[in-house]
Amino acid sequence: MSYYFSKTITASFDEAIVLATEALKKEGFGVLSTINIHEKLKEKLGVDFQRYIILGACNPPFAYKALQAENKIGTMLPCNVIVQDLGGGKIEIAAVNPIESMKAIENPELGAVAMQVTEMLKRVIESL
Amino acid sequence: MSYYFSKTITASFDEAIVLATEALKKEGFGVLSTINIHEKLKEKLGVDFQRYIILGACNPPFAYKALQAENKIGTMLPCNVIVQDLGGGKIEIAAVNPIESMKAIENPELGAVAMQVTEMLKRVIESL
Repeated sequence: MSYYFSKTITASFDEAIVLATEALKKEGFGVLSTINIHEKLKEKLGVDFQRYIILGACNPPFAYKALQAENKIGTMLPCNVIVQDLGGGKIEIAAVNPIESMKAIENPELGAVAMQVTEMLKRVIESL
Repeated sequence: MSYYFSKTITASFDEAIVLATEALKKEGFGVLSTINIHEKLKEKLGVDFQRYIILGACNPPFAYKALQAENKIGTMLPCNVIVQDLGGGKIEIAAVNPIESMKAIENPELGAVAMQVTEMLKRVIESL
């Protein structure tokens, strides 16, 4: 299985961010952090990268369950959703697949939470 | 290999955040996001979780290399460092181990970057 779920849509970059945020909300995810990669790379390295945003998405009841099962799981939270501009009006939105990113962790309780969150993030992307 | 590197130190919670931030800086990582987990869980679920912060750390030249090698890698960036209060004056600081979290990705170019970043994060934790 891939480490992400993605869909490419025709939209403006800003519209795509709104769509992703709304789709996340429907599955109970709030956006806790927004990292503007292209601005950061421009500022720090002076390079021109495509428009690229990382939304840090968190579903509080599931995050709480994951943290109770595995107190270092914060090293892999929140669940990221990226929005990147492919050019020509095409925007790609991709969500991490927690089952794959958390593969190295042997904890059945966490695994059960990761499976549920993976299904939710898959639905977020499919709904776009 | 574990999915994180960690060290438990005797310090106040706020001192530990400053120490972690400074140690990250020495290895070229800036902190792009700070997520206050205990405040968020209190606000959203009304539960009392230990003090727990997620610092989103990014070393721009390495992040740029990783993004060029694998444009969906933003689903796993930035590299998280958590600071959590274990009680009794003990604070645990843990950094993600990118080699483990990125295990599912078959991309030798990315693998080379992940190995270097893993060494840097290991040094950050060892230096505390």
